[in-house]
Amino acid sequence: MRKNRRFQLVVIGDSVENETNNRIAYNIGAFAAKQGWVLLNGGNNGVMQASSKGAFDNGGLAISILNTEDIDGGNHYSSVTIPTGIGWARNSVNVLAGDAVVAVGGKSGTLSEIALAVCYGKPVIAFDNSDGWSAKLAGERIDDRFDPVISVSSIEDFQREILKIHNRHKSI
Amino acid sequence: MRKNRRFQLVVIGDSVENETNNRIAYNIGAFAAKQGWVLLNGGNNGVMQASSKGAFDNGGLAISILNTEDIDGGNHYSSVTIPTGIGWARNSVNVLAGDAVVAVGGKSGTLSEIALAVCYGKPVIAFDNSDGWSAKLAGERIDDRFDPVISVSSIEDFQREILKIHNRHKSI
Amino acid sequence: MRKNRRFQLVVIGDSVENETNNRIAYNIGAFAAKQGWVLLNGGNNGVMQASSKGAFDNGGLAISILNTEDIDGGNHYSSVTIPTGIGWARNSVNVLAGDAVVAVGGKSGTLSEIALAVCYGKPVIAFDNSDGWSAKLAGERIDDRFDPVISVSSIEDFQREILKIHNRHKSI
Amino acid sequence: MRKNRRFQLVVIGDSVENETNNRIAYNIGAFAAKQGWVLLNGGNNGVMQASSKGAFDNGGLAISILNTEDIDGGNHYSSVTIPTGIGWARNSVNVLAGDAVVAVGGKSGTLSEIALAVCYGKPVIAFDNSDGWSAKLAGERIDDRFDPVISVSSIEDFQREILKIHNRHKSI
Repeated sequence: MRKNRRFQLVVIGDSVENETNNRIAYNIGAFAAKQGWVLLNGGNNGVMQASSKGAFDNGGLAISILNTEDIDGGNHYSSVTIPTGIGWARNSVNVLAGDAVVAVGGKSGTLSEIALAVCYGKPVIAFDNSDGWSAKLAGERIDDRFDPVISVSSIEDFQREILKIHNRHKSI
Repeated sequence: MRKNRRFQLVVIGDSVENETNNRIAYNIGAFAAKQGWVLLNGGNNGVMQASSKGAFDNGGLAISILNTEDIDGGNHYSSVTIPTGIGWARNSVNVLAGDAVVAVGGKSGTLSEIALAVCYGKPVIAFDNSDGWSAKLAGERIDDRFDPVISVSSIEDFQREILKIHNRHKSI
Repeated sequence: MRKNRRFQLVVIGDSVENETNNRIAYNIGAFAAKQGWVLLNGGNNGVMQASSKGAFDNGGLAISILNTEDIDGGNHYSSVTIPTGIGWARNSVNVLAGDAVVAVGGKSGTLSEIALAVCYGKPVIAFDNSDGWSAKLAGERIDDRFDPVISVSSIEDFQREILKIHNRHKSI
Repeated sequence: MRKNRRFQLVVIGDSVENETNNRIAYNIGAFAAKQGWVLLNGGNNGVMQASSKGAFDNGGLAISILNTEDIDGGNHYSSVTIPTGIGWARNSVNVLAGDAVVAVGGKSGTLSEIALAVCYGKPVIAFDNSDGWSAKLAGERIDDRFDPVISVSSIEDFQREILKIHNRHKSI
């Protein structure tokens, strides 16, 4: 990992408010903040907002990567906004910005992000007890040229898996 | 449809050479050319090249929308190249360029394109007898806010479904 | 030049209606069509529409590369629309799509396109008798690592310069 | 300005090492850090690296928005990397990410960024005593629909002008 760069964790998932998904996302953000990592997401509601709030409440740095051009768009818990202005092509930027990508719930937008993350060879973790595409693809190999999506069932599972990825980065 | 614009059909699928998929793709390109439509794809090998060749052999217009910056990249059967230079964010441009999107086979890149096409509300047709993500998602509703992926099993099925979409456009 | 690809000419300039600029642009489009080349532009009014109309009236192919997501957006004289959906980042795609770029008039958007075309090493021709940034930069070297902007004062000048560029491509 | 978002300052300029430009850029970064602002730039050498170092040495947050896909690319003084993977279309994202844009020196890439920033209605400040496009365009109205580029001759000038912009944002 490049000198002085912080570990970057991207959270993906849909903008619908779902209590289970939001609690998972909040805990991901809180954990990232406590580790001193940077949390990035698409800046909208639901999983995105909940993960930013988790980071925010724990003194962490959350960054919104928006599809729109509006620097003041996105949720209230991110400290920095990158308003790409490139529509859903933003999903490609989103996953490139992670050392790892974690998926909670998700509809077609999230599905595109999981697929793009795999395309780029990023490690992807999905909660099999959230819903939508994260639950469907957790543990699946969606492209035979790349690793399967890592399946986790709890925040403890997630912490163990993401720390493995983090430790591989540190040792580079 | 805007005056003087031609109907635009986007073909997606992977770059691996697969005889069944390539034959389907060739026939799609040939049909599009005979209808006077414009055929667009990602410009690489496999399904992309085969569909361009189908259009080319029948006097049609095929356009490659590349991920790279190289205007001379892509396969030899497209008459025009749009070298976007935006990496896999190109997949978003690709599906936006279609009045409809048809999927044959496909790995993670194709999966991202199916998902993005649905995100944008584009009609998506998938061959259930190709393989990969097209076969898996044919007939499935991948996002509850949008129509399901239309499943077809033969070039005749495809022609019937795409003509329905085409006729809806003409009548606007 | 890749087999079967047609020579691609990108016209840039602003969307304001200016009789002098529009006449120049129309003649560029007409010349491109007569040569069997593909004409590309940003799809809006003014110089863009006039050049598309010049191509259209002469049986040529004009392609609009739009900043929006609307496949039915843009002017009525282009046969194909590439609605990139990436805002002004579209200007980068626009100039990449040319074997050469020709500028007529122009405000800040055109200025960004001239600069990006030079960045990518594309040959840029500007009409010194149009107005705006084309007139200001015609003949100037805007970056010491690249060739100067080629200055032309008439459609005859333009034809001579673009044919030189075209002939270099053919001989590759 | 959206609740909890920090003021975002984008520094543009070329990657060539120039002592005068680098000293200006370093002081911009240092000032931004002391104000608690976020500093963003294209992540390369020269002006970009110098401004990041100025922020870094003063405990500030610098973010690199790269044209490549490499999360470990860019200079060593930014804490976060956004590797857009979209080539020079990145220049559009770059300027959108600022509440204001400040230009020091610069070749064709910087010229495209000044032009795009103006297109988006962003306030642009340029050092008239740096060189290249910043010096040429300082004080000029490059598009009659937008404000002129603000000209500054010293870091004190810059501080005064950027604080005016900052104060307008706070009061919204």
